[in-house]
Amino acid sequence: MGDNTVRFGLLGCIRFASKFVRTVTQSSNAVIIAISDPSLEIANTFAAANNLSPETVTVYGSYDELLNDPRVDAVYLTMPVTQRGKWAVTAAEKKKHLLVEKPPAQNAAEIDKIVEACESNDVQFMDGAIWLHHQRTVKIRETMFDSGLLGDVRHMYSTMTTLVPEQVLERLTKEAFGSAGAIGELGWYPIGAALWAMSYQMPISVKALPSSVATNSVGTILSCSASLQFGSTANAIIYCSFLSQLSTDLAISGSKGSIQMNDYVIPYKEDTAWFEYTSGAKFVDMHIGWNMKPEKVTVDCGGTEESQEAMLLREFVRLVQGIKRGESEADRRWPEISRKTQLVIDAVKKSVDLCCEVVYL
Amino acid sequence: MGDNTVRFGLLGCIRFASKFVRTVTQSSNAVIIAISDPSLEIANTFAAANNLSPETVTVYGSYDELLNDPRVDAVYLTMPVTQRGKWAVTAAEKKKHLLVEKPPAQNAAEIDKIVEACESNDVQFMDGAIWLHHQRTVKIRETMFDSGLLGDVRHMYSTMTTLVPEQVLERLTKEAFGSAGAIGELGWYPIGAALWAMSYQMPISVKALPSSVATNSVGTILSCSASLQFGSTANAIIYCSFLSQLSTDLAISGSKGSIQMNDYVIPYKEDTAWFEYTSGAKFVDMHIGWNMKPEKVTVDCGGTEESQEAMLLREFVRLVQGIKRGESEADRRWPEISRKTQLVIDAVKKSVDLCCEVVYL
Repeated sequence: MGDNTVRFGLLGCIRFASKFVRTVTQSSNAVIIAISDPSLEIANTFAAANNLSPETVTVYGSYDELLNDPRVDAVYLTMPVTQRGKWAVTAAEKKKHLLVEKPPAQNAAEIDKIVEACESNDVQFMDGAIWLHHQRTVKIRETMFDSGLLGDVRHMYSTMTTLVPEQVLERLTKEAFGSAGAIGELGWYPIGAALWAMSYQMPISVKALPSSVATNSVGTILSCSASLQFGSTANAIIYCSFLSQLSTDLAISGSKGSIQMNDYVIPYKEDTAWFEYTSGAKFVDMHIGWNMKPEKVTVDCGGTEESQEAMLLREFVRLVQGIKRGESEADRRWPEISRKTQLVIDAVKKSVDLCCEVVYL
Repeated sequence: MGDNTVRFGLLGCIRFASKFVRTVTQSSNAVIIAISDPSLEIANTFAAANNLSPETVTVYGSYDELLNDPRVDAVYLTMPVTQRGKWAVTAAEKKKHLLVEKPPAQNAAEIDKIVEACESNDVQFMDGAIWLHHQRTVKIRETMFDSGLLGDVRHMYSTMTTLVPEQVLERLTKEAFGSAGAIGELGWYPIGAALWAMSYQMPISVKALPSSVATNSVGTILSCSASLQFGSTANAIIYCSFLSQLSTDLAISGSKGSIQMNDYVIPYKEDTAWFEYTSGAKFVDMHIGWNMKPEKVTVDCGGTEESQEAMLLREFVRLVQGIKRGESEADRRWPEISRKTQLVIDAVKKSVDLCCEVVYL
C-alpha cells in the first residue's frame, strides 16, 4: 500500500454499502481498511458477506472507534440520514475526508455545519450522487450545453420514483427517514438534475404541487411533485415518489434542442449508457413526420472500470491525494452542489408544510 | 363515385390542409369535391398547388357557397379558431358532417353549441387530434392499460412545444388566435393525452404553474405549464410553449409500469412508430443497473395507408357512411372527447387569468 493510496473506513454497514466496497476493491489507489457499525454483529456479517478479510480490514462495533483509528484517511457514511449530520461533523473534526450518502443531512443548516467542519479541518466533502460523475453526464455537458445545441434551457422534467410495498411505507418514520421524507431521499436526484442543467443557478422560487403530495399515517412524505422557477424563462418539474414504479426520467427542453434519458440516476447497464437528443427539430412539410429522428449518443464505460461509481471514487481519491500531498486545498465545488441541492429540498419541504404555497429562495 | 363515397368540402384553404387532401386522395371511399376560402385567390392557388382539377373540384370564394352545395357530405374546417365555432354550427345546420381542426372552438360553450347543432341534425363531429387514431395509440391501450402492465396511473408528463420566431410571436393576436393562445393551440395535445391516459375521467382541479406562463405584448399566452389533479393519487403535468424547440413527449408512470414516447403527436416517420415501456422494473442488487431495459414496441403502419391521418379518415368515413345509410346514429364519443379536452383548457386558461390559482372542475 503506497503512500498515495487512500484508506477508507465505513461508518455504517447497510447492505447498499457493498457497492462501495466493490468499487474500492476494483480500484488501484484506494483500499478499505476498517468498517464499523453500532451493532458489531451487523459489521461482522457485512465483512463476511463482502469477503473483507480480518487480516486487512478491522471491524469496529462503534463509529467512534473507527474515527479514532489514525490509519483511516476517509470515511463513507451510510447510517440513517437523521444521524449523518452529527457523524459527518465528528468525522471531519477527526480529519477524515467525507463521502456521504445522499441526502447527507436533514436540512441545509446541518449541511452548513458539516461544510464548516470540513473547511476548518481541510478535508474533502462529497455526497453520493453518483450520476454527476458518469461520463454520460460529462458528455451531455460538452455536446449539448457547451456546444449550443440545446440553446437556453426552457423546461425540465425529472423524476425519481420507486415502488415500495405498502407495509414498508408505514414503517418509514420521520425519526428514521428525515422530515423531508421522499423529497430528501428521492428528490435529491431530480432536484440535483435541474440544478445541474441550470449550471447551479438557484431557482427564484419553488412550489409543491398539491395534487402530488402524499404522506403515510405518521406524516412522512411519500410522494411529491414540485415546480422550480429559474429566472423568468426556465422552469423545472420534479417528481419523487415511493408510490410509482421505478422511473428516473430526465428531459430537458431548450430553445434549440432537447435531451431525453430514462435512466439518468443509474444506467440500465453498467458498461454502457446513452442519451437521445434533437437539435433544430421541426415537423416536415404537411406535418407528416419530423425532419430528423433523435440522435442516440452512446458512452462506453469500459466494463466496470469507468462505471459512475468508479468515476466518483476516482475524483474523490484524486482530491484527497492532492490534500494529503499538500498540493491542493479541498475542492469547494462539491460541498456547494450538496448545499444548493439541500436548500431547494428544504424549500420544497417548506412549500409542502405551507399547503403548497410558493416559497421564495 | 359510389353512393358509399364520402364527398368532402374544405372550409378554409390554409397550407396545412394539403395533408388532408393527400390523405383523402389516397383513400378509396372519400373524395374532395369542393374547396372554399373567403379569398377566391387563395382557394385557386390552393387548388393548383394540390393538383385539384377544376373538372372534379369546385372552387368557391365563400364558405356559404360551399355549404349550399348539396353534393357535399362532409366538411373539413381549418379557418382561424375564432371563426370555427360559428362556421361549424352553420355547417351542421346544413347537414354537413364535421371534421374540425383542433382546437375546434374558443371555449366549451362554443363546443356545446356545435355539439347541439350536430345532434339536432344527426351529423358526425370529430376534431383533428390525429394521434388518437394512430395504431400505436390503440396498441398502448391494449398492451399497457388493458393488460395491467402499467397498473394505476400515478403521474403523467406531456408536452407540445414548438419554437416560433420572435417576430411571428408578436403577431399572434387573441383576435386571430383565440384567447386561450398556446393552451388551446398546443395544449390540446398534452391535455388530451392526460385525459386519454385517464380513460376520460375528468380532473378534479387544475392549476397553471406561475413559473411557466409567458405572454406577448398583446397578452396572447405563448407558454404555459399546468398541473392536473385526477382523484387523490394521479396527476399530470402538461407543458405547451411557442418558446421551446419542438417536443412532443408523453411519459406515463403507473404503479406497475411506465411508458415513454417522444413523438406522440406526430411520429418521427409516417410508416412506423414505437413506444418504450418497462413493467416491474427494479434496480438490480447493489444498484449497479436495472433488472431490465425498456421494451421497444414498434408498430408498422404499412407505408402511408395506415398513417394516423388515414386511420382518422377511415374512422370518420365509417361513421358518416353508417349515418348516410341510416344504419347508425352519430357517435357521441368523439364530440365528448373534444368537449372534455376543451373544459380542461378553459380551466387552465382561467387559472392563468386568476394568477395561477387552483381551479376546480
